[in-house]
Amino acid sequence: MDHTTAMLLEVFVIFAAAQVGGAIARRVRLPDVVGQIVAGCVVGPSLLGWITPSEPLEVLSEIGVVLLLFSVGLETRLDDVKRVGGSAFAVGVIGVIVPFVAGAFWAHSLGPDWPRSLFVAAAFVATSAGITAAVLKEMGVLRRTESRVILGAAVIDDILAMLLLGVVVAIQAGGSLRVGSLAVIAGEAVAFVLVVGWLGTWMMRRGARWLEHTRNPMSPLLVVLALCLGLAWVATRFGLAAIIGAFLAGMIASETRQRVQLEEQMQPLLALLTPFFFVLTGAKVELGKLASGEALGWLLVATLLALVTKLVGGWLGALRLGPRSALIVGVGMIPRGEVGIVVAALGLSAGVFGDQLYAVIIAMSLLTSVIAPPFLALLLKSGAGSRGSGNTQAVDATNP
Amino acid sequence: MDHTTAMLLEVFVIFAAAQVGGAIARRVRLPDVVGQIVAGCVVGPSLLGWITPSEPLEVLSEIGVVLLLFSVGLETRLDDVKRVGGSAFAVGVIGVIVPFVAGAFWAHSLGPDWPRSLFVAAAFVATSAGITAAVLKEMGVLRRTESRVILGAAVIDDILAMLLLGVVVAIQAGGSLRVGSLAVIAGEAVAFVLVVGWLGTWMMRRGARWLEHTRNPMSPLLVVLALCLGLAWVATRFGLAAIIGAFLAGMIASETRQRVQLEEQMQPLLALLTPFFFVLTGAKVELGKLASGEALGWLLVATLLALVTKLVGGWLGALRLGPRSALIVGVGMIPRGEVGIVVAALGLSAGVFGDQLYAVIIAMSLLTSVIAPPFLALLLKSGAGSRGSGNTQAVDATNP
Repeated sequence: MDHTTAMLLEVFVIFAAAQVGGAIARRVRLPDVVGQIVAGCVVGPSLLGWITPSEPLEVLSEIGVVLLLFSVGLETRLDDVKRVGGSAFAVGVIGVIVPFVAGAFWAHSLGPDWPRSLFVAAAFVATSAGITAAVLKEMGVLRRTESRVILGAAVIDDILAMLLLGVVVAIQAGGSLRVGSLAVIAGEAVAFVLVVGWLGTWMMRRGARWLEHTRNPMSPLLVVLALCLGLAWVATRFGLAAIIGAFLAGMIASETRQRVQLEEQMQPLLALLTPFFFVLTGAKVELGKLASGEALGWLLVATLLALVTKLVGGWLGALRLGPRSALIVGVGMIPRGEVGIVVAALGLSAGVFGDQLYAVIIAMSLLTSVIAPPFLALLLKSGAGSRGSGNTQAVDATNP
Repeated sequence: MDHTTAMLLEVFVIFAAAQVGGAIARRVRLPDVVGQIVAGCVVGPSLLGWITPSEPLEVLSEIGVVLLLFSVGLETRLDDVKRVGGSAFAVGVIGVIVPFVAGAFWAHSLGPDWPRSLFVAAAFVATSAGITAAVLKEMGVLRRTESRVILGAAVIDDILAMLLLGVVVAIQAGGSLRVGSLAVIAGEAVAFVLVVGWLGTWMMRRGARWLEHTRNPMSPLLVVLALCLGLAWVATRFGLAAIIGAFLAGMIASETRQRVQLEEQMQPLLALLTPFFFVLTGAKVELGKLASGEALGWLLVATLLALVTKLVGGWLGALRLGPRSALIVGVGMIPRGEVGIVVAALGLSAGVFGDQLYAVIIAMSLLTSVIAPPFLALLLKSGAGSRGSGNTQAVDATNP
């Protein structure tokens, strides 16, 4: 009881800080999420120390980002994603290769041997879809071609990142690399995405009628929330991020006739719970460990490398959409968020790298999450992206 | 990451179990909450073992019940509560005295000395407003006189229970009973309720206009959610339950012009989060420790005692509303829920009583929470309550 009530204070601080940070960000014409991440850094252990990342807060944060990606999926139709499948695939693949190779050379230049360098490089790879999705949703542009390419690429990106992590962990541990078992893991993940995506939407299209026979207006929401939480967990069983499962659940739910009603009912849930994800992301920056000249130098280079390589990779992959749209896709793929943090935590506990490199990689992951959104917002506002591409739609009028 | 994703499974299980349990309960014409509590008992450690109460789940549960009492407050106007103030006060006071005295005699008859018996008796005292509030809300009768008396009495009840717990802990620890410091604690709690209730609603009535000048339809919700979480925490600083602060925050928010909009926006939040409170309540029953004849005997007597004494206490206090309304109030005050659990946990860690009595008291607290709702629903459905009282309104037409 005592501990739970103490957590109530942190819950309040996180929620209030997110509102203040978001309001300040809006004032200076930055996306809400940037304000919330910075607010997290301010109230977190590095500065004010009002909140400390803990398991209950992690769970709230996870639920928040799961709901966010679910609602993003809710605004995404499978047919629209299929239409941009080729571009999304190219962005996902090239966007993984370029940062990985560059990251490996950078890490090797700092001293570690090649196996360790490849491990460090894995932290440069995976895009965190949560930050970009929040910006796209906030600006009401989820139906633009660039948004669909980014979301599709994020799914492919996550599968590749998972495989790459498996490879570097095996290499680093000195074990033999079992190509066969990796192929099975990859196959399972791809099968999960395809089966859930295709079969789920197909079943929902045919079977959604029973949802309409309930008197309680909350019933469809309850059904799809259970689907969302269930698929989020199943995705983790296939080695994928929970948010991939939630995104697929949202895509399935978007096939129901209650789509608009569901989108509306999701708003209060997002308003309460997504701040936990963004504030906690910011609270994880350990400013103290970055206070040396060497650390700051590493951080500068690592962040630039992370920015440029993902930008170039995404841009190359999306080039067929036209140069401006490709730029939007490239910027949208920049945020690393929690995936880089997971790799760094694995590396620290496996003794692959020390405290300082750990802090640098975490700070790099978070910096990319703060730097990308303003540029993305700027590019989207300029409206130039829609001119560059043939099949881009204008901002959907139903999205305020 | 691993642990957080493991929690995702428990989150899914709890949510899905609550939906299944609720649906079955509706089929057999019982309130939803009964089905959710029983579902928690089934998936909890005692039977299937699919979930284990843990800190993250406790926090989700606490947020769920805080939001529930906030939304109950949202449907409660201060002026209406003031009108039933006398009855609520009588119900609160008599409803504490009767179970406390009876519980002390029962405990003493089992063997413990008087200080320990008083400690045990404290577990019989406090009504948990969450369960009853959920039933009243589910049936759309929050505006009936009986509902207002119950909610008002729950606030007074909570203050008295807190004082009583202070007294029995002091007596049991053998320390001198400082009447002065207890008076200060009591004064602070009363002052908190009065100041927040009166001043908050007064300020909201005058200052609510600025809420109307925002373009974002979520903004009023964000402001009142921050108020809710903040007051929930502040209430715990005054020794009161978090839900008392949340209830007051809801009453304050009910003075805004966005009241109806807020009630609607709260629905998805309640749908997602209150199941955690009810399922976790059920999951805490330890059936294994009740498997002896002696334990079952104790449980039977304790539960009967808890039911009858609170029923009589509440009935006596509310008698001026007429006998049927008094019966509704008495039944509504029966659920003990988490407060009895807190006292039992304190008693266990202080060595006041052993494992078996601990399990009995917890099971008694939870049994009262399962037994009362069906009777409450039955009494409310019969509609006889409104005939017994002069100033009872019919079920409000705006509450579906």
